[in-house]
Amino acid sequence: MKYHRIGFAGSGNLAWHLAQDLEKAGHFIPVIYSRNPENAALLASQLYDTTVISEPDFSGFNLEVLIMAVSDDAIERLSEEILVNEDTIVVHTSGAKSMETLEFLKENYGVIYPLQSFTKEKAIDLSDVPFCIEASSSRVHEVLFSIARSLSSKVVVLDSDQRKVLHLAAVFANNFTNHMLFWAKTLLDAEGLDFNLLKPLSKETVEKAFFLMPELAQTGPARRGDYKTMKSHLDQIEANPELSKLYQELSKSIQFNT
Amino acid sequence: MKYHRIGFAGSGNLAWHLAQDLEKAGHFIPVIYSRNPENAALLASQLYDTTVISEPDFSGFNLEVLIMAVSDDAIERLSEEILVNEDTIVVHTSGAKSMETLEFLKENYGVIYPLQSFTKEKAIDLSDVPFCIEASSSRVHEVLFSIARSLSSKVVVLDSDQRKVLHLAAVFANNFTNHMLFWAKTLLDAEGLDFNLLKPLSKETVEKAFFLMPELAQTGPARRGDYKTMKSHLDQIEANPELSKLYQELSKSIQFNT
Repeated sequence: MKYHRIGFAGSGNLAWHLAQDLEKAGHFIPVIYSRNPENAALLASQLYDTTVISEPDFSGFNLEVLIMAVSDDAIERLSEEILVNEDTIVVHTSGAKSMETLEFLKENYGVIYPLQSFTKEKAIDLSDVPFCIEASSSRVHEVLFSIARSLSSKVVVLDSDQRKVLHLAAVFANNFTNHMLFWAKTLLDAEGLDFNLLKPLSKETVEKAFFLMPELAQTGPARRGDYKTMKSHLDQIEANPELSKLYQELSKSIQFNT
Repeated sequence: MKYHRIGFAGSGNLAWHLAQDLEKAGHFIPVIYSRNPENAALLASQLYDTTVISEPDFSGFNLEVLIMAVSDDAIERLSEEILVNEDTIVVHTSGAKSMETLEFLKENYGVIYPLQSFTKEKAIDLSDVPFCIEASSSRVHEVLFSIARSLSSKVVVLDSDQRKVLHLAAVFANNFTNHMLFWAKTLLDAEGLDFNLLKPLSKETVEKAFFLMPELAQTGPARRGDYKTMKSHLDQIEANPELSKLYQELSKSIQFNT
């Protein structure tokens, strides 16, 4: 395995996990730039020998790779501001943005998109997280593959269009699923019931969806056309027209598609 | 611990797991009645010494408890047909049906509602599954508590109204969540991408929702009011008006409630 000199722009949740795990995998993280110097300093304090810089001038650090772990909106502006050596590979980490966002950088750019939800407060095992990579050249591909493979056994080569579809699917699997749990908790809270009662069921729901596939795992009143139970559920939430509407839309979608 | 003589009406997914786990916990399952004698025979073949009966006459089996593990619709009809000894406790296993569905049985009735999704094909560990019990008398309570506790460390006493709320919340946590994964898979299938790419993210989504609580775990374009990304997602699915509508309703619900 080859070890790389990897710099970071950004010090948020993704940079927090990625930088530390890259270092554990043997790579060297000489520099972090962030608009939030306190965040950057905190992350640097977790690393071996990392300089925090307040302007995005990476040219003195002899980087092989610069990882832009910033929000989608910040990618373009930042990529115009950064100074890097000519042969430094610059990658962004966004599911939604095409690789070409970085194309002014000529041959040396790409994407590393780890398909996971990152929070500083919560440890995460990256070893089975899919790392989706896209590269502007075969040299870049080799470096990105080597970096991703040092963190995870699951490296996937996707182009920007495929990555966009995956990102949209992830909105359903993460954002919308979390919102389902938000409503479940809201209902239980109103009755003084403990949200944790749902934990074994929620875990099994995900396990079963991947074991049987969602179309076969679907159960419930909408799936079996049980209008009596659906009516009774709607009676229970009639004081909340928004939630009632959501219940009806979701039930319709289950009835007509599964 | 006291061991009980427990009969079953029904031989579906729930009976399949419950009967076998009860026997493993030391109870005796002398009899199963089912409208589907082949299912009942298959389940009986997994048990030590269990008779399959084709009419719901349990009076010769000296049962302490009869568990009606049947669909909601079948409970009332079945409870009128069954013959049991006077002191046999009859319970149903439904989240949505009130305990009083069984009240003609006088003092000896109740509910055991295990909050989990059961499939014959998939092994399940019941030890942390919440068993929600409701009893018509303190004698019944003691027996149901003892049975539930022999299977799980998590026994919860809920009345019928609380159980109905929990059942509705479970529709969000299970049925609707599975449907989110259905759409995620549909999107990936259309692009030839492997649904399993989403497995680590989906597992982490549930873990994080219970670790941080869903209101704090919420991320994504709707949560941060990122209309550009939402517009781009809607462009991707414009050929599917139904899915577009669902995306919009869910995004609105996230924006206005979290």
